[in-house]
Amino acid sequence: MCGIFSAWGIEDASNHVYLGLYALQHRGQESFGIVSTDGEQFYMKKKMCLVADAFHPTTLKMLRGRGAIGHVRYSTSGPSVMRNMQPIHAQLHDGEVALAHNGNLVNAPTLRRQLHQEGMIFQSSLDTELIFHLMARSQATSLKERFFESLTQVRGAYSLVMMTHNQLLLARDPYGYRPLILGEYRDGLVAGSETCAFDLIGAKFVRELEPGEVVCVDQQGKTTSDFLPRVARQAYCVFEHVYLARPDSHVFGENVYSARKAMGRRLAQEHPVTADVVVPVPDSGVPAALGYSEECKIPFDFGLIRNHYVHRTFIEPDQRIRNFGVRVKLNLQRTILKNKSVVVVDDSIVRGTTSRKIIGMLREAGARSVHMRVSSPAITHPCHFGIDTPTRQELIGANKSVEEIRGYLNVDSLGYLSQEGMLSVLAQTKDSYCVGCFSGRYPEAVDVELTNPS
Amino acid sequence: MCGIFSAWGIEDASNHVYLGLYALQHRGQESFGIVSTDGEQFYMKKKMCLVADAFHPTTLKMLRGRGAIGHVRYSTSGPSVMRNMQPIHAQLHDGEVALAHNGNLVNAPTLRRQLHQEGMIFQSSLDTELIFHLMARSQATSLKERFFESLTQVRGAYSLVMMTHNQLLLARDPYGYRPLILGEYRDGLVAGSETCAFDLIGAKFVRELEPGEVVCVDQQGKTTSDFLPRVARQAYCVFEHVYLARPDSHVFGENVYSARKAMGRRLAQEHPVTADVVVPVPDSGVPAALGYSEECKIPFDFGLIRNHYVHRTFIEPDQRIRNFGVRVKLNLQRTILKNKSVVVVDDSIVRGTTSRKIIGMLREAGARSVHMRVSSPAITHPCHFGIDTPTRQELIGANKSVEEIRGYLNVDSLGYLSQEGMLSVLAQTKDSYCVGCFSGRYPEAVDVELTNPS
Amino acid sequence: MCGIFSAWGIEDASNHVYLGLYALQHRGQESFGIVSTDGEQFYMKKKMCLVADAFHPTTLKMLRGRGAIGHVRYSTSGPSVMRNMQPIHAQLHDGEVALAHNGNLVNAPTLRRQLHQEGMIFQSSLDTELIFHLMARSQATSLKERFFESLTQVRGAYSLVMMTHNQLLLARDPYGYRPLILGEYRDGLVAGSETCAFDLIGAKFVRELEPGEVVCVDQQGKTTSDFLPRVARQAYCVFEHVYLARPDSHVFGENVYSARKAMGRRLAQEHPVTADVVVPVPDSGVPAALGYSEECKIPFDFGLIRNHYVHRTFIEPDQRIRNFGVRVKLNLQRTILKNKSVVVVDDSIVRGTTSRKIIGMLREAGARSVHMRVSSPAITHPCHFGIDTPTRQELIGANKSVEEIRGYLNVDSLGYLSQEGMLSVLAQTKDSYCVGCFSGRYPEAVDVELTNPS
Amino acid sequence: MCGIFSAWGIEDASNHVYLGLYALQHRGQESFGIVSTDGEQFYMKKKMCLVADAFHPTTLKMLRGRGAIGHVRYSTSGPSVMRNMQPIHAQLHDGEVALAHNGNLVNAPTLRRQLHQEGMIFQSSLDTELIFHLMARSQATSLKERFFESLTQVRGAYSLVMMTHNQLLLARDPYGYRPLILGEYRDGLVAGSETCAFDLIGAKFVRELEPGEVVCVDQQGKTTSDFLPRVARQAYCVFEHVYLARPDSHVFGENVYSARKAMGRRLAQEHPVTADVVVPVPDSGVPAALGYSEECKIPFDFGLIRNHYVHRTFIEPDQRIRNFGVRVKLNLQRTILKNKSVVVVDDSIVRGTTSRKIIGMLREAGARSVHMRVSSPAITHPCHFGIDTPTRQELIGANKSVEEIRGYLNVDSLGYLSQEGMLSVLAQTKDSYCVGCFSGRYPEAVDVELTNPS
Repeated sequence: MCGIFSAWGIEDASNHVYLGLYALQHRGQESFGIVSTDGEQFYMKKKMCLVADAFHPTTLKMLRGRGAIGHVRYSTSGPSVMRNMQPIHAQLHDGEVALAHNGNLVNAPTLRRQLHQEGMIFQSSLDTELIFHLMARSQATSLKERFFESLTQVRGAYSLVMMTHNQLLLARDPYGYRPLILGEYRDGLVAGSETCAFDLIGAKFVRELEPGEVVCVDQQGKTTSDFLPRVARQAYCVFEHVYLARPDSHVFGENVYSARKAMGRRLAQEHPVTADVVVPVPDSGVPAALGYSEECKIPFDFGLIRNHYVHRTFIEPDQRIRNFGVRVKLNLQRTILKNKSVVVVDDSIVRGTTSRKIIGMLREAGARSVHMRVSSPAITHPCHFGIDTPTRQELIGANKSVEEIRGYLNVDSLGYLSQEGMLSVLAQTKDSYCVGCFSGRYPEAVDVELTNPS
Repeated sequence: MCGIFSAWGIEDASNHVYLGLYALQHRGQESFGIVSTDGEQFYMKKKMCLVADAFHPTTLKMLRGRGAIGHVRYSTSGPSVMRNMQPIHAQLHDGEVALAHNGNLVNAPTLRRQLHQEGMIFQSSLDTELIFHLMARSQATSLKERFFESLTQVRGAYSLVMMTHNQLLLARDPYGYRPLILGEYRDGLVAGSETCAFDLIGAKFVRELEPGEVVCVDQQGKTTSDFLPRVARQAYCVFEHVYLARPDSHVFGENVYSARKAMGRRLAQEHPVTADVVVPVPDSGVPAALGYSEECKIPFDFGLIRNHYVHRTFIEPDQRIRNFGVRVKLNLQRTILKNKSVVVVDDSIVRGTTSRKIIGMLREAGARSVHMRVSSPAITHPCHFGIDTPTRQELIGANKSVEEIRGYLNVDSLGYLSQEGMLSVLAQTKDSYCVGCFSGRYPEAVDVELTNPS
Repeated sequence: MCGIFSAWGIEDASNHVYLGLYALQHRGQESFGIVSTDGEQFYMKKKMCLVADAFHPTTLKMLRGRGAIGHVRYSTSGPSVMRNMQPIHAQLHDGEVALAHNGNLVNAPTLRRQLHQEGMIFQSSLDTELIFHLMARSQATSLKERFFESLTQVRGAYSLVMMTHNQLLLARDPYGYRPLILGEYRDGLVAGSETCAFDLIGAKFVRELEPGEVVCVDQQGKTTSDFLPRVARQAYCVFEHVYLARPDSHVFGENVYSARKAMGRRLAQEHPVTADVVVPVPDSGVPAALGYSEECKIPFDFGLIRNHYVHRTFIEPDQRIRNFGVRVKLNLQRTILKNKSVVVVDDSIVRGTTSRKIIGMLREAGARSVHMRVSSPAITHPCHFGIDTPTRQELIGANKSVEEIRGYLNVDSLGYLSQEGMLSVLAQTKDSYCVGCFSGRYPEAVDVELTNPS
Repeated sequence: MCGIFSAWGIEDASNHVYLGLYALQHRGQESFGIVSTDGEQFYMKKKMCLVADAFHPTTLKMLRGRGAIGHVRYSTSGPSVMRNMQPIHAQLHDGEVALAHNGNLVNAPTLRRQLHQEGMIFQSSLDTELIFHLMARSQATSLKERFFESLTQVRGAYSLVMMTHNQLLLARDPYGYRPLILGEYRDGLVAGSETCAFDLIGAKFVRELEPGEVVCVDQQGKTTSDFLPRVARQAYCVFEHVYLARPDSHVFGENVYSARKAMGRRLAQEHPVTADVVVPVPDSGVPAALGYSEECKIPFDFGLIRNHYVHRTFIEPDQRIRNFGVRVKLNLQRTILKNKSVVVVDDSIVRGTTSRKIIGMLREAGARSVHMRVSSPAITHPCHFGIDTPTRQELIGANKSVEEIRGYLNVDSLGYLSQEGMLSVLAQTKDSYCVGCFSGRYPEAVDVELTNPS
């Protein structure tokens, strides 16, 4: 999970990219980076921290110029992560390029093997770096054509913002897995993963990039669009609506919050229950819980309160504090839960461990019965298109039946939204979405190394 | 507004105080401090930052011992604030003391003048420091008696945690303005401003300190209670229930969230309206909005979404972004607001400037009509008992009629909860609360310097 | 050991104090602090680090105004040192004061006991704080008089710079233990511990403050001098010439480097030797070694090279590296030492442990014989007047005869400069210097707590 | 100017590389980096700061394993320097490599152009990166052979330490421009730029790598040597002896300090003068001044004192302080200079601006006459083999005659050591040294882009 943003033809472009990334922080909390250009050179800052913690004002001023791109990155692990921060950059024979990528290239292992055999070296373990190598090997004369040509050779999910000293290039893969949205800001242009970033800076929404569209903007703001070869269908990531995107964003043609509420409503139709109170797992479960509550006429209430000062860098306390990892984020409202029959609504279940702890806390608070409702289907397969899901072994939905999961979670009843139901409430036609993580049916072939990670 | 916490007779006491302060972060975001003791000496760390940002794990380890007290402090301004961080400490003739204070002493100017005349010097501009001076001048033989004697000379609001190398002392003023709560943790004792801090570390709630109670705990855990002279009534700060305390805390004998919801319900009875949706100003307006919605059967929905990565140290962007200060915290849900008649619910109105901006945003999102409901009375007077309210000149409730405020905010209707209504839904008898900020009738006399600040 | 500096009536005064302290860094590497005033309030920064590491330029700009005082402090140990950083400040009944002190008050324990009995509290363990308390208790009407009166009650070593919002006060104790020097800078005045600080900023040397002189400068630059009661003699700290002051400074009426060279020359007269090369222990032994070499016509050469990147915060390596503590500062020049008869010259010997390691290294490098010469007498007693010498138990000169020390150091011969010889080459009359550390004969009585520290 | 160090087969290898780099700090103060391996993966830290400022002890612990290489880098300018920090690393088809380089490749522009044409991309502007690309394109089967083969294609100066997860590779170019020294440490091996790094950790000097030697050490410590094709001569950088190496190091077969002293002695023979005192420009001019003084029997003395707390990050003060840049490093000893005829000795003159300021200071201190002596010839050409000299336009020796320089510096006489004289006192035969910067006669052809930098 990553977020990207760019500003072009805008004074203090890096300041606006900084704000855009700040609004997109939920898409990646591990590291972030900005590259700007004043038409002469690149200025770069990458750091492993939250956006708001990254900058001294004087540092931001050093990222000069009217063009900038930026990236936020989700937490992964391992000691070598620093060199995997984005945007990445390279020196091509005719100039410097910087690139930020949201998504995942599913033929990366094959391409990397080929390029290694041809004597290429790699600086990172990012699939994104392949695009630079493919561009460098292209015989096309203009950089824009070389970029286009490189994209015809990669497969998978990519929303891209790329920059030279005098051009901005945007691209979205033909399936359109990830959103990429265009906006206007004063005399210039902004583009990024979600509309919430536009709202923060007061930019005007123009349109989503079309799947397969490659946009080039020059220093004068002149914009051209080209299109990659069409594919059979679209494959919008349905998980953007389930969990990933911010509720106040508009992606794939509709408002995320409304989509989540509609899923909650549908969930109530599919899995009704008689209970005293509908309680969301905050914050992600709130819209679906509201929808559920409205549909089945059971009062909505906050039986779990979220601590909003949670930081990643928190010092772990004494290990003997039970369920501390959940406790530090959520606290109970005993008055709401005690002796009540409770419907707890969450957007999804991944490993099941956190849900189990939460339900343990609800019972500890005196809930008479606990019914869990999940506003998406069981996750049965990993995502290869840009979301950092665990392997199948770790996915509870891949290894247990619904009844077994109910037992593991220790709930009185458990209901998942059906795939059919989920898709029925969304704005696009059902076959426009990627539901790979719920079905194992991916829109396109995936390199075998990715499906069987060692 | 401040928060205090202490742990006594507990291994790694400072670690638990750190977590307690983390849970109390909402009571003060400017600075925090911890002093610990291993029975031989004090170890101290104070810093102007959020609790979670303050510590490298090795630093926390340096705060050794089985006793610790801590403090979080609300943002004030000015360049000399560093020396006003708490806990404060001093060398008395018979040992070191450290002290953390939540509240405000209303005879501090008079006392300070007297002590200055007698040749005392002050290190800070904190009223808290007076307690040390009064202790030092006392002729009583034990430190505990000197502490007690000093408290008979101060007036106003104080919940205190004080520590020597081998004693913990807790005190709550006779009016009981601020909460101070006792808990058990393993073989030791914890005490702090709110129960949410106990929930985080898994400590057990025991009871609230009684107004006027002074507790002394020695190194063996032996606890004694003494009582300051009784006063005519209690004066629990009703604003703890309106806004200050965390919703998942239990203070003054009841759950805060439930109290807020009850105020919302009562508000609906006093100021009903016909509308399409009830929208809270998140997060503080949520419980009252839920109560309002339930009472008047208008659907509750999140028309405003909060960004939970907001940091104080955020770099201000280009000043030309309109309403940026509000925008960075809240974003609109246009689909919920467009063409709707909206009831917006907040817990209180101080200056009115933020409310006005929020209402401007709601109208910008296309709300057909906007009705504002406030789950507390109009604030007409400053607080002298520990809340950092502005002067009367800045309080919109002190300077405009309800109709004038309605016009200023540009709402179709405006309704404040009555004082009578607010008190009627709370657990204690009506005259047990301080409602000074809503009425100007303070429980006790306040030094004239405080009421007329230059 | 500390250094002080002040700038008054000078634009960006704190910037000049910062530079002055930078030049005085050798007098204290543990912490430093600056307080400035713009006539309205104080701005303060104290930090435990080297001067050059302390400031971001924007921070320095925040220390506003045309008056500033500063302090550098020598490394002491213990966890509670932060509150002992200087300058210290206090709120008196008629205004704020800030104070920086070089020296040590020898009746501090007695005074502190008295003040404690009268109900005073202390914030630090600094004797300096006593001056504020004595001022606060004084009945004199002006702050300047109260300052003067407080100085009549303290005994010992003090060079002081003190500041209110509109006055600068300078004072030097009647014995004149520590230097305090006046200079001119543009339209304003500077004062500090050594002239090297004036050289850095281009200020003009005016004169040393006289022993017992108290200078007051007002906001218009008007300067008045008063004098404390005279004492029988002066007691300039001879160790300033031996080791403490920077060689390029001028203190007690003469150049430090020249004084050190003269001591080296005299040392050669007292303890001549036949050898191949004179090798200094850099940097402090260099001038004396040059003088020794010139006098006895033995070539001077650098057989030990100093690493000038040495930092206090250095991470200790593997403990198995032999003599690492010395090695990281000094390296050998084998070509100069091998098979040579070497005279190694240092300014003084404190515990003897470092000297022993150095001599071990010289022998390891193949020196045929090693003769140690020390350009001051054996240190036999602690200093109570501002230098952080160890207790008598740790002073090798207090516990061993010269012959025993020679054996311990494993040198072929050892010669200390005589007290008589040392004083004979200095500019002032012999009885103008304090030689307490070499003789145990202190100029004035010292509280027994200081001579018998627990 | 850079320094390199490696430790192999040694517990906590990174700790020893850290110390080695600390000792080599004079070869590069801008940034430093360490890469370690535990045989499974690389651990990396690079930072723009001094070595001693870089590490928290826990960070150093994270650089795990028994193999490590490191690099210190000289200050260059520009905003994109972060990506030019070393060691660099890359992913080759058969594993990861990390590389640190001291020197400069003189056919880099040609090679880079060729590789760009073949579709290669570059991550940095470092010539060092070429070695990775050449290795990746090699058809040889083992990594060691591919490394060897790549070195046959580059020309210029390189001392290299390279590491895979299980091999250490060392290489020195056939001319031997830069030193590279082998040592033993316990059961393992160390290698680095200068012997002073061995002295610090207590490693044993074994020998210098021979020009053209490529050493490979495997995980068991087995060492093999191969040799690149021989070239006509050696070309040891004479400037290592003039200025670059630390005086306590042994490079190119002799002690640096002794070589400098010999140059000073020879300088006295070539340019004798009658004067009162010989004054070095500290620290680099000290050995030559001592030699000069000894040869011509004029007393040596420190008329200029160096401030050893000088840091690069120093905040620039008020610009009106005259000659501040020199003043902050050097202070005058007026007593030594006043009314004296002074010989000031420095190791070299680059632009002449600093020398001119120093001489201005000497005159300001009252020197009657000033004679400048320089212990190397006039620098007339830039270095292309690893020293960061300015372009010819900026080199005073390239643009003015000795007499013109004398006038510019305002000295009574000026004498440079002759090239002949300089070479005559060194250990190797005269044609074994590179004297390109003094003569423009470089040992091998240099790409035209390097000689005419835009």
